[in-house]
Amino acid sequence: MNMKLGLNAYGKNAVNLSKIIRHADHHEFRQISVNVQLEGDFETAYTLGDNTKILPTDTQKNTVYALAKQHFTGTIEEFGLQLAYHFFSRNPQVSKAKIEITEHGWQRMAFDEQAHQHAFTGGGAEKRTTVVTQTAGGATVSSGLKDLLILKTTDSAFENYIKDEYTVLKETSDRILATQCEAVWDYTATDLDFEATYQKIRTTLLRTFAFHKSLSVQQTLFAIGEQILRENDVVREIRLIMPNKHHIPFNLEQFGLDNNNEIFIATDEPFGYITGTVSR
Amino acid sequence: MNMKLGLNAYGKNAVNLSKIIRHADHHEFRQISVNVQLEGDFETAYTLGDNTKILPTDTQKNTVYALAKQHFTGTIEEFGLQLAYHFFSRNPQVSKAKIEITEHGWQRMAFDEQAHQHAFTGGGAEKRTTVVTQTAGGATVSSGLKDLLILKTTDSAFENYIKDEYTVLKETSDRILATQCEAVWDYTATDLDFEATYQKIRTTLLRTFAFHKSLSVQQTLFAIGEQILRENDVVREIRLIMPNKHHIPFNLEQFGLDNNNEIFIATDEPFGYITGTVSR
Amino acid sequence: MNMKLGLNAYGKNAVNLSKIIRHADHHEFRQISVNVQLEGDFETAYTLGDNTKILPTDTQKNTVYALAKQHFTGTIEEFGLQLAYHFFSRNPQVSKAKIEITEHGWQRMAFDEQAHQHAFTGGGAEKRTTVVTQTAGGATVSSGLKDLLILKTTDSAFENYIKDEYTVLKETSDRILATQCEAVWDYTATDLDFEATYQKIRTTLLRTFAFHKSLSVQQTLFAIGEQILRENDVVREIRLIMPNKHHIPFNLEQFGLDNNNEIFIATDEPFGYITGTVSR
Amino acid sequence: MNMKLGLNAYGKNAVNLSKIIRHADHHEFRQISVNVQLEGDFETAYTLGDNTKILPTDTQKNTVYALAKQHFTGTIEEFGLQLAYHFFSRNPQVSKAKIEITEHGWQRMAFDEQAHQHAFTGGGAEKRTTVVTQTAGGATVSSGLKDLLILKTTDSAFENYIKDEYTVLKETSDRILATQCEAVWDYTATDLDFEATYQKIRTTLLRTFAFHKSLSVQQTLFAIGEQILRENDVVREIRLIMPNKHHIPFNLEQFGLDNNNEIFIATDEPFGYITGTVSR
Repeated sequence: MNMKLGLNAYGKNAVNLSKIIRHADHHEFRQISVNVQLEGDFETAYTLGDNTKILPTDTQKNTVYALAKQHFTGTIEEFGLQLAYHFFSRNPQVSKAKIEITEHGWQRMAFDEQAHQHAFTGGGAEKRTTVVTQTAGGATVSSGLKDLLILKTTDSAFENYIKDEYTVLKETSDRILATQCEAVWDYTATDLDFEATYQKIRTTLLRTFAFHKSLSVQQTLFAIGEQILRENDVVREIRLIMPNKHHIPFNLEQFGLDNNNEIFIATDEPFGYITGTVSR
Repeated sequence: MNMKLGLNAYGKNAVNLSKIIRHADHHEFRQISVNVQLEGDFETAYTLGDNTKILPTDTQKNTVYALAKQHFTGTIEEFGLQLAYHFFSRNPQVSKAKIEITEHGWQRMAFDEQAHQHAFTGGGAEKRTTVVTQTAGGATVSSGLKDLLILKTTDSAFENYIKDEYTVLKETSDRILATQCEAVWDYTATDLDFEATYQKIRTTLLRTFAFHKSLSVQQTLFAIGEQILRENDVVREIRLIMPNKHHIPFNLEQFGLDNNNEIFIATDEPFGYITGTVSR
Repeated sequence: MNMKLGLNAYGKNAVNLSKIIRHADHHEFRQISVNVQLEGDFETAYTLGDNTKILPTDTQKNTVYALAKQHFTGTIEEFGLQLAYHFFSRNPQVSKAKIEITEHGWQRMAFDEQAHQHAFTGGGAEKRTTVVTQTAGGATVSSGLKDLLILKTTDSAFENYIKDEYTVLKETSDRILATQCEAVWDYTATDLDFEATYQKIRTTLLRTFAFHKSLSVQQTLFAIGEQILRENDVVREIRLIMPNKHHIPFNLEQFGLDNNNEIFIATDEPFGYITGTVSR
Repeated sequence: MNMKLGLNAYGKNAVNLSKIIRHADHHEFRQISVNVQLEGDFETAYTLGDNTKILPTDTQKNTVYALAKQHFTGTIEEFGLQLAYHFFSRNPQVSKAKIEITEHGWQRMAFDEQAHQHAFTGGGAEKRTTVVTQTAGGATVSSGLKDLLILKTTDSAFENYIKDEYTVLKETSDRILATQCEAVWDYTATDLDFEATYQKIRTTLLRTFAFHKSLSVQQTLFAIGEQILRENDVVREIRLIMPNKHHIPFNLEQFGLDNNNEIFIATDEPFGYITGTVSR
């Protein structure tokens, strides 16, 4: 009995690249990590060890660096479109080229309200992301962010849930709500102003989180997605992952002290894992 | 315009649980991490903040500990089946209950070839995994392993691939092949001897990797999957992820020394990412 | 032959604590991690298993939470002084109580230049630190920061170093200088305005890094330390760790392209590790 | 006022190196990470940016690879002695050369009790370490291990400790004892059989941990150190770090179930941090 090859893909992951873009009076500094993933007619590579249709992952890596010289001048979405098209158009055996780019932010230093020309501080955990997919049917772009830590100290409740013999959690009308937010949204086109759109969506996400009177993580998640769709016709659908980073009130009562929602233990594990998709 | 809720799920992740199973003359020590994920009729929780159909993730966590007392006596697959059935059968609003369990191995200490009764060393990075899914249609079990580091110092080549203007990599008939293997296979039934089957599959994976004359990671991946399917009628399909943990010969020639495949730099990033599915 | 106990210490590490400080019109959110370490007359605990002089690490943890309720209202230095004094003064067997506190920053969200009352984003990798030590001789305070990522795209050279048969590195008058800076400085007193002093020192560190014409990491490190000492009489000595986070120009010439200090690979390992102490 | 340079050092860290040692009928595979640290007459580098006495860390890295070709044939201690002597003897400005080496173990695969010639599995978290220091006074060697996870399910108690108003912990005569052990011992000579001595010490550590009737982590730590010194005249002193990896019984009583030391939560943070030195 012969076995058969099903879904498969290969490519180079974590191609880490930094670029200085030199302007007359200041420098930009950009830092990205690129994943290349190819699907296509690779069956004989798997079944026979025939590498004649294999573009080595080392070459993929070199290509990313070489194309960055000319084409990485704007958003990660535009660079991703260039890369995806490059691999797809030059390799007839490839049916789908997928480029994932993660950008690490850097913040320009400022002193006495003067921006410095060439010194930066690291931008923290939050990262901007994009996935560009090129097939014979054209290119699609999904963008997002991840590792965005957000927290509110009030306007968050969790009540009226199911109780059973394993229920210990107490209902609360006032708790900390914290999450390490990940969002991915699908664009309806590939010729957008990706920079402006991104900034607008990110602000809506933060604003909705901050002002929402939350009855649950699920409700806040939906409210964020709904508002982003409302304000952005170019977004078809958004997927949100909002793990509940629990902050548990420490039991001070056992020492004769009150804990009026003041002192908390932040725990990493276990954590609630809340996901949802919002579409039109 | 109202937006609508698409695919969604929630649950408790990383429920870390250890168990001592006490036998007359020795102890077993087991350590697992459990993820619970529920899908179902949760729309009003997202759109209205109505929590009346929400089983809190804190209760899910408590349930895992309580059920472990009675039901975690054998394989993670058997315990997963119990947990998935529990959440599905008691919650009519749940259409799918998915339980993921990761087991960390511990090795019993031995001295002078005598196994010790109750002392253990940590089992390393390798972990055993299972995913049990319960719906109205019944239960399914997929099992696997991850973070299995395997390496061979020869019998691995990579030649005859595409060359273009970005090609730097040299063909080689003898290189190190190393990977951090992840495998997941689907079982055809839920009443198997999960322990014996797992051990047999793991040995086949190692043996095929060790003895294969590899022409590429892709070919070795397929060979492993094919052999596991051949030897195990109870496996329907297997998915393998075999990132290429590159070991690059260090350029000693610049110092007037030979490097006959002796001295290498192991790099973490970037890395080749090779995946494939093998089915009947 | 009897063996003897030398240097020893014990305590609770990683006591993670969050606090909401509620003001009339806004909330503060603080997040810290506390290590308690006790030295003293613990010999019989080690040699005989006599625990009568052992304050359990669980109790130490509880104490941190209980004291945070009343005493964690200002800087980590002030809270550290309270904690160190508490453990030292109540335990005659303790000769030294050391408290280490790491604070994770959170940034208040703002919309349309209005600060939000109770919503925050995570502050990134950078952390503020303090070590307070209490002995019979009194208390001392050292403070610092760590995981501060800073980078400049020019004004950094590295030339005129030793060359030998293993030299490959090319001299350069213009390179990226990047580091994950850690600094610890000793204060001359315990009744300082720790907040203002910290902010002043941090700004001097950034400013010196940004404007320095660097001939080496060593020189920049010394310049930073020297300037901080010059501007702050309350600092006796400063210790700096500035690992060189290498950014290596990618070899585009092999593809017929120039790389005029534009495209770089940032590598994590190996890394240059540069340390130095500056004192009066 | 001029500031002065105090303690300082620099070097290359995390020089990751793998070596295949080829024997007629089998291969050895070795994986190490090397830190080089130099102290000496480097004042003008810090104060003036004068690099003429600086051996670049890039050259240090190259030297490690070049010397590994000839000299890394046995233990990490022997290779460390070669490296330390190399940097010290060729650089008159260096007063101390310190080499730290961490070795990652790999286990040879075996099938049907036959060892395979060239296939290996990763050795887990445990690592073997050495620190070699060369000065004008000669060389010294300290060796050790780290990240050794060990656990026993009984023969561990913790009772008769101090109680105060913050005490919650219950005394127990039977608990899990688990630690991620780190040990460093100083050798009295540099011409030892480092391999045999290491294996003997490691076995004594495990055996003492396994058979000890523990009254506290402190007592077990001392017992291990004492026994290692007793059995090894070539060890002058040993330093042990044994963080208490807490396993907390889950409160099943709240659900009407017993928990006879069966079901535990393993927590990462906070953790007890126990250290001690044992000498003659």
